[in-house]
Amino acid sequence: MKKHVLEQILAIVPKERVLLDLAERYSYSFDASFGQYLPDVVIQPETAQEISQLVKLANQYLIPVYPRGAATSLSGGPLPVEGGMVLDMSRMNKKLIIDRENLLAIVSPGVITADVHKRAEEVGLFYPPDPSSSHVSTIGGNLLENSSGPKGLKYGTTKEYVIGLEVVTPTGEIIRTGGKTVKNVTGYDLTRLIVGSEGTLGIVTEAILRLIPKPLARKTLLATFHRLEDSGHAITKILSSGILPAAMELMDNACIRSVEQYSPCGLPVDAEALIIIEVDGHPMAVEEEIRICEQLCYEQGAAHVRVAQNESERTDIWKARKMVSPAITQMGPTKISEDATVPRSQIPEMMRRLAQIRDKYQLNLVVFGHAGDGNLHPNIITDKRNKEEMKRVEEAVGEIFEAAVSLGGTLSGEHGIGTMKAPYMEMELGEAGLMMMKKLKQAWDPNHIMNPGKIFPKPGQTRVVLTE
Amino acid sequence: MKKHVLEQILAIVPKERVLLDLAERYSYSFDASFGQYLPDVVIQPETAQEISQLVKLANQYLIPVYPRGAATSLSGGPLPVEGGMVLDMSRMNKKLIIDRENLLAIVSPGVITADVHKRAEEVGLFYPPDPSSSHVSTIGGNLLENSSGPKGLKYGTTKEYVIGLEVVTPTGEIIRTGGKTVKNVTGYDLTRLIVGSEGTLGIVTEAILRLIPKPLARKTLLATFHRLEDSGHAITKILSSGILPAAMELMDNACIRSVEQYSPCGLPVDAEALIIIEVDGHPMAVEEEIRICEQLCYEQGAAHVRVAQNESERTDIWKARKMVSPAITQMGPTKISEDATVPRSQIPEMMRRLAQIRDKYQLNLVVFGHAGDGNLHPNIITDKRNKEEMKRVEEAVGEIFEAAVSLGGTLSGEHGIGTMKAPYMEMELGEAGLMMMKKLKQAWDPNHIMNPGKIFPKPGQTRVVLTE
Repeated sequence: MKKHVLEQILAIVPKERVLLDLAERYSYSFDASFGQYLPDVVIQPETAQEISQLVKLANQYLIPVYPRGAATSLSGGPLPVEGGMVLDMSRMNKKLIIDRENLLAIVSPGVITADVHKRAEEVGLFYPPDPSSSHVSTIGGNLLENSSGPKGLKYGTTKEYVIGLEVVTPTGEIIRTGGKTVKNVTGYDLTRLIVGSEGTLGIVTEAILRLIPKPLARKTLLATFHRLEDSGHAITKILSSGILPAAMELMDNACIRSVEQYSPCGLPVDAEALIIIEVDGHPMAVEEEIRICEQLCYEQGAAHVRVAQNESERTDIWKARKMVSPAITQMGPTKISEDATVPRSQIPEMMRRLAQIRDKYQLNLVVFGHAGDGNLHPNIITDKRNKEEMKRVEEAVGEIFEAAVSLGGTLSGEHGIGTMKAPYMEMELGEAGLMMMKKLKQAWDPNHIMNPGKIFPKPGQTRVVLTE
Repeated sequence: MKKHVLEQILAIVPKERVLLDLAERYSYSFDASFGQYLPDVVIQPETAQEISQLVKLANQYLIPVYPRGAATSLSGGPLPVEGGMVLDMSRMNKKLIIDRENLLAIVSPGVITADVHKRAEEVGLFYPPDPSSSHVSTIGGNLLENSSGPKGLKYGTTKEYVIGLEVVTPTGEIIRTGGKTVKNVTGYDLTRLIVGSEGTLGIVTEAILRLIPKPLARKTLLATFHRLEDSGHAITKILSSGILPAAMELMDNACIRSVEQYSPCGLPVDAEALIIIEVDGHPMAVEEEIRICEQLCYEQGAAHVRVAQNESERTDIWKARKMVSPAITQMGPTKISEDATVPRSQIPEMMRRLAQIRDKYQLNLVVFGHAGDGNLHPNIITDKRNKEEMKRVEEAVGEIFEAAVSLGGTLSGEHGIGTMKAPYMEMELGEAGLMMMKKLKQAWDPNHIMNPGKIFPKPGQTRVVLTE
């Protein structure tokens, strides 16, 4: 970092919020994905004005700018791949206003998502998006990645709940998009353009979230199947019965065994699949709906269906699902978590292809995910020090993407593109589609300083997992 | 139209679908808003390929391109304000596929929106967006204007139901955005950028819509109030009780009187306001919810609450609401229909300001709208030949916009900006916000051929209603 640039940074932000020590910078060099990149400086801004000035400075000296929430990204969103300046947004966590009358929350980007859930629920309201990381991840990170979780089926994704933003643009202007109304057609929808843009089109400094009344009741069941295919049919039958569950989660046999080994929950280790279904809404409606779900599961060949009779039994059921990630992590030093998503009718076919890929490359591949919205999480357990195996992983990941796209699905349902999937963008979008995105990026960020190295593939870039 | 250009058009589209006669062109010169502009040629394309070639030609010769659905726009969306080429999309109406397993509809842009409703409901599914014009307007027009209607409160707007598009870009490329999955974070959300872009960023040639299971039951009530303020409190109380109605419609006294005069429905002409509330969902839930709504209305001072006991009584209640537009149209030769939208807690204040504006400018102003989501429709009944009165109308409309924005609302909740509200864009968005939209437009449409004269104000443009 050149001295005169640093002096200008210190004129914007006091020195206790400007981190230069190697040890400190090191702790900002990774996220929950792969790769490690040392930033030149880490800055902890507290206001949109500070960020605006820093971004203007970055444009002047062509310094890459990397905004960072809690760094739980699985796709490399916050990685400072070209060095430069990391903006640690964690100090911008002061505002969390619940506007009960207008069913809104107004939040600073550094607020933890679980705190939004908690504060909304305290007054009978509900913010549905719930990525697995919500107890640690920030709402700003959730927004920029459009993270979702299990409730996308009934409630939509994060995007459906963001109606207004304050944003520092890539050229350092502070703008407001959208507002406090669900209906707003005044010009282009910049709100939804920025949500999911992975920090490449600007930095969110405040957000207005739409809340809904909290469902009065919920009921949960766990159904096990001897045949994976039957579980797929059960899902389809339930969705075409007129019931829209709040969540429909799927775990395959490898996943079940892994959980049982890690923390026994009484799951049948010989079952090919299990599904967890949760319905919510009016107490009388959920009683009826869960019974219909139970019946439909049996009709489609379920070996066993367990309906939670109380909150403690419900917690037990969800515990099995929540154990998946820690259980898998125990299986090997490196976990590659994908989120290829297909139209839900293609889930059985996608599961077949994943099994083929697993066998072809002889990999430890387990599958779970949000079956109701086609959002699967194939996870490969490997060891990144094993170069030979990592080559097979690399090939397998590519084939997973190809399978998803060829079945009418997408590379990424909720984790984002980041550094991990950039090489496959053109396969899904086509040359012209990708070009429209590049034009947009170029128009807004002519100096390419906002989160460079993300989303768009570099010429000739083909690697996904390996970065050397 | 120059001869060599026409020859090239005729090489793309056969002559029976190229309209040049003055009488034919005249019938494409207006929509449901103001102003009349004669196009040079009207073309009726049948494929995305034809449109792609026409748009490339338009870029070559700098010909303005105006896509047009059923021309029900209230903001001037399809008006060919700079002449050029109107693309009548009505022949692109062949595809209407309901994919029941994936809860999707795949539609051509010229399909009538009511046909999407009908076909979805035939198989137990539901497409919630329902603008008043849905029996005649096209789904393509609905998408490009992000039209909504009464169900935005519970179900969100059109945007929430569009997950994939085929689009001809302003430079004539055919791209696909999004896909068949609700979750998709592969790059920027071009789908939602194009929905609501009013035809300035491309032409939709196919859309993938998300459907949901059709609610099993619904119940409707009509509550009358002696005091407008009480109706506002009733709305707020209901929304904070945990009930999310499918619709909450408001009509003011002028509106009630106008309907009773036009087609007597037994409405109390001395009531200051009435609200119509509809709840939908599980049969047992809606029975309970409508009773709670009834009780809360009485608690907030309702003079009378009528709960529909059967489908015929429900139709009667909605008839009152549906009569509003025809009734108002009878009141004078010119109707100016606005859609300023405010956070719902500001509805009582917005109603007060509208009354002040009505009195100040001595205008015939009636108010109705979608109260649950803050989307009001102040309508001014006037006569465009009365130049003196039109000047007052012009001023009043400007003050309505200012009131909405100053209360934290927006210029337009669902009608769009078009030609009508362009001069007020900067008031809401700020200079920097508007500039980000312009950069986007410039990057995608460097020759400014896609629906020019819309959304963005021309330098010095201040007129809204009058166009002289």
